[in-house]
Amino acid sequence: MSLVYYHAEPAANSLKSMICLKEKGLDFESRYVDLHKFEQHSEWFVAINPEGQVPVLVHDGAVITQTSVINEYLEDVFPAVPLRPADAVGKARMRTWNKFVDEHVMNYVSMHGWHRMVGVIARSIDSGEFEKLVERIPLPDQRKKWQTARSGFSEADLAHATDKIVYACAKIEAHLAENVWLAGDMFTTADANFYSMCGMMVERMFPELEVAKNYPRVIDWRERMNARPGVRAALEMPDHTNPALRTWTGHVR
Amino acid sequence: MSLVYYHAEPAANSLKSMICLKEKGLDFESRYVDLHKFEQHSEWFVAINPEGQVPVLVHDGAVITQTSVINEYLEDVFPAVPLRPADAVGKARMRTWNKFVDEHVMNYVSMHGWHRMVGVIARSIDSGEFEKLVERIPLPDQRKKWQTARSGFSEADLAHATDKIVYACAKIEAHLAENVWLAGDMFTTADANFYSMCGMMVERMFPELEVAKNYPRVIDWRERMNARPGVRAALEMPDHTNPALRTWTGHVR
Repeated sequence: MSLVYYHAEPAANSLKSMICLKEKGLDFESRYVDLHKFEQHSEWFVAINPEGQVPVLVHDGAVITQTSVINEYLEDVFPAVPLRPADAVGKARMRTWNKFVDEHVMNYVSMHGWHRMVGVIARSIDSGEFEKLVERIPLPDQRKKWQTARSGFSEADLAHATDKIVYACAKIEAHLAENVWLAGDMFTTADANFYSMCGMMVERMFPELEVAKNYPRVIDWRERMNARPGVRAALEMPDHTNPALRTWTGHVR
Repeated sequence: MSLVYYHAEPAANSLKSMICLKEKGLDFESRYVDLHKFEQHSEWFVAINPEGQVPVLVHDGAVITQTSVINEYLEDVFPAVPLRPADAVGKARMRTWNKFVDEHVMNYVSMHGWHRMVGVIARSIDSGEFEKLVERIPLPDQRKKWQTARSGFSEADLAHATDKIVYACAKIEAHLAENVWLAGDMFTTADANFYSMCGMMVERMFPELEVAKNYPRVIDWRERMNARPGVRAALEMPDHTNPALRTWTGHVR
């Protein structure tokens, strides 16, 4: 059996499936893809994932992309340590939360992260070289995101993104009043998702939201996440981010 | 066993799970929710789905929302006629396509549909009454969409939406060169998804894209979809749309 996980730093999408791999105690080969060297758009990596996006799971030759799809795949293939409820209604609850995070949280935290970190990196590259780097990006949406990161996201878009994050925190705060984890009594892929995309760094990234005061159950849930051995092991994976640019990573250790 | 499906016209989200219910030959109770009377935001419906969105599946008291989640639920609970591959890699392929349609197709075709149809309806309501209707909408994003439909979507947003639809058609055209259905040899929920959200009406809604000429495999696939008894049965569900405003529905019969 061969199980290879191509990933970047332990944050956002790369962390999301790493947590599931570690929580399940799977024996996999880790291959670090250096985003600081734009390896995700390099020939060797695009040969594996034509969309030029990390992470990617390769299991006995089958290439699986998209973290929510990867996490369902891990449940289908390695059910010994389940991170998905056994009953259909529980599965639906987990999937509803994953869909919410994928569609209503991920891109909005990401915009603030790109604004603060990728924007600095993009502006540090001279324009001729930047154009060449952008040309290599396979997905048109991703090309646009790099260009916008360089020129700067609009205040209106950033404010809208903050509104979406406030909505998500309030929704999850209310939900945690009656549930231990997002899908109910059981830790699932939905917790790994919200944690990686927002929960682990929302307090640090958005001090103006006063997360500890306004969303104490989110903080309690985050502390329970931080204490899990699988989550800790995932966070200990290599982090080559310039410490001055760390918006997402590096805060737990 | 009690299986109830609350739905609107046979198009977009309401059609998407209706196709799966019909393809699986399930015996369910159909409850029509009249969007023209804003029933999806009425007290009785919001008591079932607090987000005020159709469709909703209620199975033995369990309320399942979000069509991609509903369709996975139907596979988990009623596997007799499968619309999801048995193997994990096939399941991942199906889910990757569903995610693509949910995140990169649905909202963009929807914007053009709302621009042409919901905009006309929204502007036909006087402003005091419109404000009252909007106040009842539970989801902030949905409130914003109604307000924008009334004032008009921007040309830039509509052009971006068209770009996303062109990208999707080209991607699926290329994929169908080597695959019978989206997830491979088997008809799955991913076909029901792309058909309901784009495939069934893309030629009619966007004549300027010259779909028959540029994406002949998409047309061939659409014709194979149209010929399926489950799809036909789903399309025969009630359609109360004003014929003058039919952008999505009514073209097959």
